Amino acid sequence: MLINVPETVVADALRGLAAAHPELNVDVENRVIVRRDAPVAGQVALLSGGGSGHEPLHGGFVGPGMLSAACPGEVFTSPVPDQMARAAAAVDSGAGVLFVVKNYTGDVLNFDMAAELAEDEGIQVAKVLVNDDVAVTDSLYTAGRRGTGATLFVEKIAGAAAAEGQPLERVEAVGRQVNDSSRSFGVALSACTTPAKGSPTFDLPDGELELGIGIHGEPGRERRPMMTSGEIADFAVNAVLEDMPPRSPVLVLVNGMGATPLLELYGFNAEVQRVLRERGVPVARTLVGNYVTSLDMAGASVTLCQVDEELLRLWDAPVSTPALRWGM
Amino acid sequence: MLINVPETVVADALRGLAAAHPELNVDVENRVIVRRDAPVAGQVALLSGGGSGHEPLHGGFVGPGMLSAACPGEVFTSPVPDQMARAAAAVDSGAGVLFVVKNYTGDVLNFDMAAELAEDEGIQVAKVLVNDDVAVTDSLYTAGRRGTGATLFVEKIAGAAAAEGQPLERVEAVGRQVNDSSRSFGVALSACTTPAKGSPTFDLPDGELELGIGIHGEPGRERRPMMTSGEIADFAVNAVLEDMPPRSPVLVLVNGMGATPLLELYGFNAEVQRVLRERGVPVARTLVGNYVTSLDMAGASVTLCQVDEELLRLWDAPVSTPALRWGM
Repeated sequence: MLINVPETVVADALRGLAAAHPELNVDVENRVIVRRDAPVAGQVALLSGGGSGHEPLHGGFVGPGMLSAACPGEVFTSPVPDQMARAAAAVDSGAGVLFVVKNYTGDVLNFDMAAELAEDEGIQVAKVLVNDDVAVTDSLYTAGRRGTGATLFVEKIAGAAAAEGQPLERVEAVGRQVNDSSRSFGVALSACTTPAKGSPTFDLPDGELELGIGIHGEPGRERRPMMTSGEIADFAVNAVLEDMPPRSPVLVLVNGMGATPLLELYGFNAEVQRVLRERGVPVARTLVGNYVTSLDMAGASVTLCQVDEELLRLWDAPVSTPALRWGM
Repeated sequence: MLINVPETVVADALRGLAAAHPELNVDVENRVIVRRDAPVAGQVALLSGGGSGHEPLHGGFVGPGMLSAACPGEVFTSPVPDQMARAAAAVDSGAGVLFVVKNYTGDVLNFDMAAELAEDEGIQVAKVLVNDDVAVTDSLYTAGRRGTGATLFVEKIAGAAAAEGQPLERVEAVGRQVNDSSRSFGVALSACTTPAKGSPTFDLPDGELELGIGIHGEPGRERRPMMTSGEIADFAVNAVLEDMPPRSPVLVLVNGMGATPLLELYGFNAEVQRVLRERGVPVARTLVGNYVTSLDMAGASVTLCQVDEELLRLWDAPVSTPALRWGM
């Protein structure tokens, strides 16, 4: 690993993020990443966070048109309530703060406590829970479905609503609509290695893959001998569509887990698009890249988000963050 | 690997790129990626290309403000002259075409032949050779120094000059200035696996790293027991500064080779910035991410580009490509 010692991995990364992105205000000690112009008068603030190791999620999504702040925890470990409450206070303009929470037990608990702390300070808080992963119900880290790729869609689209000055109830409703309209399915071709452990977090032999993997390497549905990119696309897209029958056009996220080359991700996207064509699902927009990762895990996930005209308009709205930027 | 069969990896990726980026014109059969609005009247066109496996280089850098077209070869294999000549004809507006060529024997030879073909068709051609890697002189694929991370700086900055309507001689001079002002040094923490071979291209035992690696896994200067991120930053930045004594402010590219998590790249950036501070080198801009990769190799490279006010202005100019986008 390209690290100093496991204990400083998150702090080191925050110092490096600060150096590369002067448009962000990075509080390394308190582990809060805030857009430099926060709070923005008249706008609802969006706050998210979670364990580190999923970069660019969430710190790479802080900026105009998306998150107001992000709180990174230790690797694969929830941030703490004080950290979130501090971030909420830094970004609240008086219009309220929307918490975007991936459905993992630690995150849910800590964001709930942070909401209480923030409300005690007179900050209006609303929450959107992201639980888009159709692979399994309940897992090592979750009661209910896990939150994965749809987080990007929720943060971008609700962030655009907030940037337009929509009120808290409306930004929250948009975020919920995005989550309710999104489903994901992921596969692992290799395990990931956490800095603290220094060796793979689970055992996945060469020549096998795990279907329905979580973003911490939590077990999925089943393990199989290696499949082709086309077979994996069939399995993943059909798993999503089984849970969410095709209706309106979709946003497609073909997301790399970390170590799969972009060359392969684009090839996988070709197969995902083929399956969608065969199933008669119109595609509105496609995003391919490493956005919601799992350290150095090889593999990919597919997220579909069904959009109406309004959600598509908000998706297309300008955004300026380290990892997602267009229109400004 | 997330592929169908090795033979279709590049074609599959191009189909997937086309689906995700309707703003590009992707000719899958002839392997040419062109911005959809090409040729752009009154503007010099920029054309690059090289072996696949380094994505987003070059296809991900096609768009307003950067490349007009890119020609991907097979994995780690030069594209062919016909392909380049076809691309040149597609993008030439009459103002001429600048070829950006990484210094690998096959690329140099084939771009030279393509230039002759294009000139036979009445197209004015100029060339910039990129040879920024200070690690070794001559290698498996190169006579002289290898072209690596500086390619991004050359394509972005010369692309901005072209977008302003500067004439061919001037765009070429800007490209050369950028290359002459840039140096790189890379390290590998693991080997990469090509689709055709299906196993690591060289043997790098766990717990060792290769200092001065090339982007195809060509051997570097030396192999050592694993070093910390700080030690690697000291070695890499000092290797660069030994070859190019500190002068004006620099652009910094902290580039991932493919499989190293963004969390680690940002941490490495913190150490790179520390060394630059210690050496008294002012930093103008920093870019961190996977831009000039080597399939699933773990590791990173550091590129410094010394800029004057004019180069910095061109760096900051608007760009809109799949992998690099700001200001538009």
